[in-house]
Amino acid sequence: MRLHPTSVRLTVPFHDCDPLGVVWHGHYFKYLELARTEILAPRGLDGAELLATGHRLYVVDARCRYAAPLRYRDAVRVDAWVTEIDPRITLRYEIHNETTGERSARASTSLAITDADGRLLLATPPILLDRIQGHVPS
Amino acid sequence: MRLHPTSVRLTVPFHDCDPLGVVWHGHYFKYLELARTEILAPRGLDGAELLATGHRLYVVDARCRYAAPLRYRDAVRVDAWVTEIDPRITLRYEIHNETTGERSARASTSLAITDADGRLLLATPPILLDRIQGHVPS
Amino acid sequence: MRLHPTSVRLTVPFHDCDPLGVVWHGHYFKYLELARTEILAPRGLDGAELLATGHRLYVVDARCRYAAPLRYRDAVRVDAWVTEIDPRITLRYEIHNETTGERSARASTSLAITDADGRLLLATPPILLDRIQGHVPS
Amino acid sequence: MRLHPTSVRLTVPFHDCDPLGVVWHGHYFKYLELARTEILAPRGLDGAELLATGHRLYVVDARCRYAAPLRYRDAVRVDAWVTEIDPRITLRYEIHNETTGERSARASTSLAITDADGRLLLATPPILLDRIQGHVPS
Repeated sequence: MRLHPTSVRLTVPFHDCDPLGVVWHGHYFKYLELARTEILAPRGLDGAELLATGHRLYVVDARCRYAAPLRYRDAVRVDAWVTEIDPRITLRYEIHNETTGERSARASTSLAITDADGRLLLATPPILLDRIQGHVPS
Repeated sequence: MRLHPTSVRLTVPFHDCDPLGVVWHGHYFKYLELARTEILAPRGLDGAELLATGHRLYVVDARCRYAAPLRYRDAVRVDAWVTEIDPRITLRYEIHNETTGERSARASTSLAITDADGRLLLATPPILLDRIQGHVPS
Repeated sequence: MRLHPTSVRLTVPFHDCDPLGVVWHGHYFKYLELARTEILAPRGLDGAELLATGHRLYVVDARCRYAAPLRYRDAVRVDAWVTEIDPRITLRYEIHNETTGERSARASTSLAITDADGRLLLATPPILLDRIQGHVPS
Repeated sequence: MRLHPTSVRLTVPFHDCDPLGVVWHGHYFKYLELARTEILAPRGLDGAELLATGHRLYVVDARCRYAAPLRYRDAVRVDAWVTEIDPRITLRYEIHNETTGERSARASTSLAITDADGRLLLATPPILLDRIQGHVPS
C-alpha cells in the first residue's frame, strides 16, 4: 500500500542545527510531522475534526535511519505516504537534501487509535477508515 | 517586592547548543520556565489546580538580556523571584553559569490572568492573590 | 530607521503547541529568527560568509510582548525590519495571525558584534556596516 | 552485551507537552540523549575529548516504541545501556513514568563513527574501543 503520497518542503533553520553544524537527529521527527499533517488534516484525521469522532491518534512507534546530514539553510523535501490503515495508521517517509541531492533519511511512524477515554482500539473504526481511504474534495 | 526567591539547577544538554557551540538564545526561556514552575506549582498556580479556579495564566511579556554564553555540559543555576502580583504576575530571573562563575543572563516574564473564556482580568482575583502571597505548607 | 522590511510566512505546527492549545511563548523566538535570517543571510551577515569577515553576531537582548495567541494550523506572518546598525544590530518584529486577523506579538532582538576571539566590539566595523546598509544584488 | 547500565531522572517540563496534554513523541529523543551523555561523556566519547581523537559520532538510527504517555510534572527515569560497540555504538533505553509506575517507552540509538573528514569507518578504532569498554576512573 502506498496511499496519498505527499511532499512538503522547508529550509533548515539555524535553531535546528547542533554544534556539529548539522540538524540534530531528534528534529527530523518535526519534519516528518509537517508531512504527516499534510496527509491527515485535509481528511479530517487531525485536530478538532478528529476529536469530534470520539477518537484520538497517538504515535506508538517512530523510527528514522539517517544517511546524510542536513545543514543550515539546506533545502529539504519530505516525501510521505500511508502504508497501513488497520489496526494502526502507518506512514513512511524519505527526507531529501535538495541542496546536495542526497537522501538524508528514511523513516516511519505508526499511530494507534484510542477512544475518548484513551482505550486502545484493536481495529480502525469505519469512520476513520473512510476518511483515510477517501479523497480530499477539491 | 522580592517574593519566593527560588533556584533551580540544570546541566546544558547537547540538543540545546547551536552551531556556535552555545545555548541558542530562545532556549533560555525553557530554563526560566523550570524556575517559574518551582514557584507557581507548589502554590496551586499551575496545571489542574489553576484550572479548577476558573482562571488561566498566559505569558504576555518575556525579556532576556544575555551577558555570557552557556556551553554544552556547563552547570547552570536559575534564580527566580516574584516582583509583581497585581494585575499581572511578574517574575525576574538571573541565569548563572556555575562552570565559569559568570552571570549568563537577566530576564523577566509577566503573566496575565484570564477567566475560563480567555477574557483578560484587570485585577488579580483574591483566590490567586492568596495563593501567590501564601506560604507552601510543609 | 526602518531598513529592509521583510515578511516570512509559516503555518503553526502541532509540535509548537502546548497543553493550553496555543504556541508556547518561547517558540516565538524561532519564528523571529526565520525573518531575521531572511534579512541577514542574503547580505552576507550569516553563516560562513559572516565567519569569513572574522566577526560573529550574538543575540544580547530578546523581547516579546504577546497580544493574541497562535493556534495549531494558524497562518502566521512575521514582519521584520532593522532599526539600529551601530554599535549593535537591532531588529523589530510584528507577528500577525492571518487566520484571525489579529496581531499576535511585537518583538525585538539586538545582536552584538564580536571578533573571532569573542571580544565585544564597541562599534560596528565598516565591512559589516556596508553589508547591512547595502542592497541585495538581484 | 549489556554494558554500563545507567539511569537519569527528570521531571516533565510544561514546554515538552502538546495539546493532547502529553509529552510530544519527538521530545523523547532528548531524554534518551541525557542518558547517553551520562554513559559516553565520562569515558571521553563526547565533546572536545572525542574531537581530540580525530573521530566523530553521528546518530544513524533512532527508534522509539511508546507504551504509555508522560504528562506535565511526571517523574521520569531513563535507563540506558550499551549493546554494541563495533562497528557502531548502539544503546538501548527504557523510559519509565515513575509517577504512574508504567513503562513509557523502549528505544534504541546507533552511532556511526567517522574520521575528521566525515568518512564512515567500517570498524570501531582501538582508541574508541578502549574507551567504551573501559571503566570510568573514580
